[in-house]
Amino acid sequence: MPNLAKRYLVDHGRKFRLKDWDPKDTAHFESEKHGEEMLTRGIERLVELQEKLYAQNQWAVLVIFQAMDAAGKDGAIKHVMSGVNPQGCQVYSFKQPSVEELDHDFLWRTAKYVPEQGRIGIFNRSYYEEVLIVRVHSELLRREHLPPSLVSKSIWKERFEDINTFERHLNRNGVAILKFFLNISKAEQKKRFLKRLNDPARYWKFSIGDLSERERWNDYMHAYQEMIENTATPHAPWYVVPADNKWFTRLVVAEAIIGAIEELKPAYPKVDPARLKELTAARAALETGRRIK
Amino acid sequence: MPNLAKRYLVDHGRKFRLKDWDPKDTAHFESEKHGEEMLTRGIERLVELQEKLYAQNQWAVLVIFQAMDAAGKDGAIKHVMSGVNPQGCQVYSFKQPSVEELDHDFLWRTAKYVPEQGRIGIFNRSYYEEVLIVRVHSELLRREHLPPSLVSKSIWKERFEDINTFERHLNRNGVAILKFFLNISKAEQKKRFLKRLNDPARYWKFSIGDLSERERWNDYMHAYQEMIENTATPHAPWYVVPADNKWFTRLVVAEAIIGAIEELKPAYPKVDPARLKELTAARAALETGRRIK
Repeated sequence: MPNLAKRYLVDHGRKFRLKDWDPKDTAHFESEKHGEEMLTRGIERLVELQEKLYAQNQWAVLVIFQAMDAAGKDGAIKHVMSGVNPQGCQVYSFKQPSVEELDHDFLWRTAKYVPEQGRIGIFNRSYYEEVLIVRVHSELLRREHLPPSLVSKSIWKERFEDINTFERHLNRNGVAILKFFLNISKAEQKKRFLKRLNDPARYWKFSIGDLSERERWNDYMHAYQEMIENTATPHAPWYVVPADNKWFTRLVVAEAIIGAIEELKPAYPKVDPARLKELTAARAALETGRRIK
Repeated sequence: MPNLAKRYLVDHGRKFRLKDWDPKDTAHFESEKHGEEMLTRGIERLVELQEKLYAQNQWAVLVIFQAMDAAGKDGAIKHVMSGVNPQGCQVYSFKQPSVEELDHDFLWRTAKYVPEQGRIGIFNRSYYEEVLIVRVHSELLRREHLPPSLVSKSIWKERFEDINTFERHLNRNGVAILKFFLNISKAEQKKRFLKRLNDPARYWKFSIGDLSERERWNDYMHAYQEMIENTATPHAPWYVVPADNKWFTRLVVAEAIIGAIEELKPAYPKVDPARLKELTAARAALETGRRIK
């Protein structure tokens, strides 16, 4: 299945218009069953790739999820990443910043969770919240009590720049970056909210705050569009993933991660002559029971 | 399969003697295949339990692995925990302490990785290294540059006490603790080392330092025995898991974790009348398209 994820790749944001992207798209897939079979095979491939990535211990992979509520972030993480060895996979969910975190710049709290070499790190929400919820709710920006002279008209442009250069820095230091915007329609979100509200086993997933965010739908779409326009780069591309069909969302996410890791060409570490000599000596010591020098 | 893991449970360390525990034991299991079928069913159960634990967001579960090299820690984590949603499962591998970590007490670096509520946290090695490798290699204790008056004959007894009270504190604050000692025989370790040394795809798993640790086998067994004798408690028991057969190790580990989470009785959160009213209002607002007050 070459290039399925490529259809949704945005690696140059210029002239990006969110309205051109259909949340209902399912490419050439005719049935959910077909998509799910593909996903199962994809996950097997991902498990293999992750093992090599881990053994090589060189590149890290940072995967960022951003979306409106109920777009399927948690489900995508669960269905794509379950099966992967949790020793090589770290998930962080960024919630409301603490008072301590608000006393630092907006990248500070996320920087320490950048994945280690050889690992896949997943950010369920991220520093992009700064140019989404904080942008939509200006009272949240006030909570950062920045020096007033720094809060100018150009603050969002500056934040985009800071994000881009932070990501470029990470990429230059061995972190491959993929960013997913799960693109759900307003109608589908309503359906999913009602499903949660009509099923006692899902009540816990619903927060009353989700409704007031929904009322700001257009503001959010504007913020997402500007975010992608300004932060889609070749070194840290966005994928605008159709999210009205969960099975398709998961398939695209899996294929994009697989493609990105394949490009890193992970492989078991090569053995140089010095190391080979060491291994030969170790074998002899074990077999003869003599001490190694 | 009731109580398989209970056979290997040590929750009172007094008079514990490691030599009474057979690394080759496979209980009543007649075949690897039988064990693997059980493990598959166990993992399905574990996945369900983890989802409830996560939804309830109350108890955390801390799982500690300690063992000699090649006893199967990494494999147990991979085979038991793959399949579990990585969003609710965190694995930390503790390596050689950094200079900054050595400038703090021996619990310091592990404390910040204690799992959050609702999560399963796995320590691949842990603060128990202090009473194992640091005890066997006294030069490592000197690297901690403690005030000399504190390095007395009773230092290991004191460390056991500090560990026990730390674990009691965690347990009193909602962290269930399970500790696994994977009990491999010296002969089986040799076999596994040779397997690594004879297979280029496994070379990377072998470290030359593993051999010098093997030469201190008896010192380590003594340290493990004293560790279990002094830190097996009802609030943080050890499981002495036979580790000469990998499939059996994984089965016992899975069953122990399942049993421990079952005891916590995880369940989807109950909805109180105030919350129910809130949910009803949200449903009405969504259906009518009116704003919620």
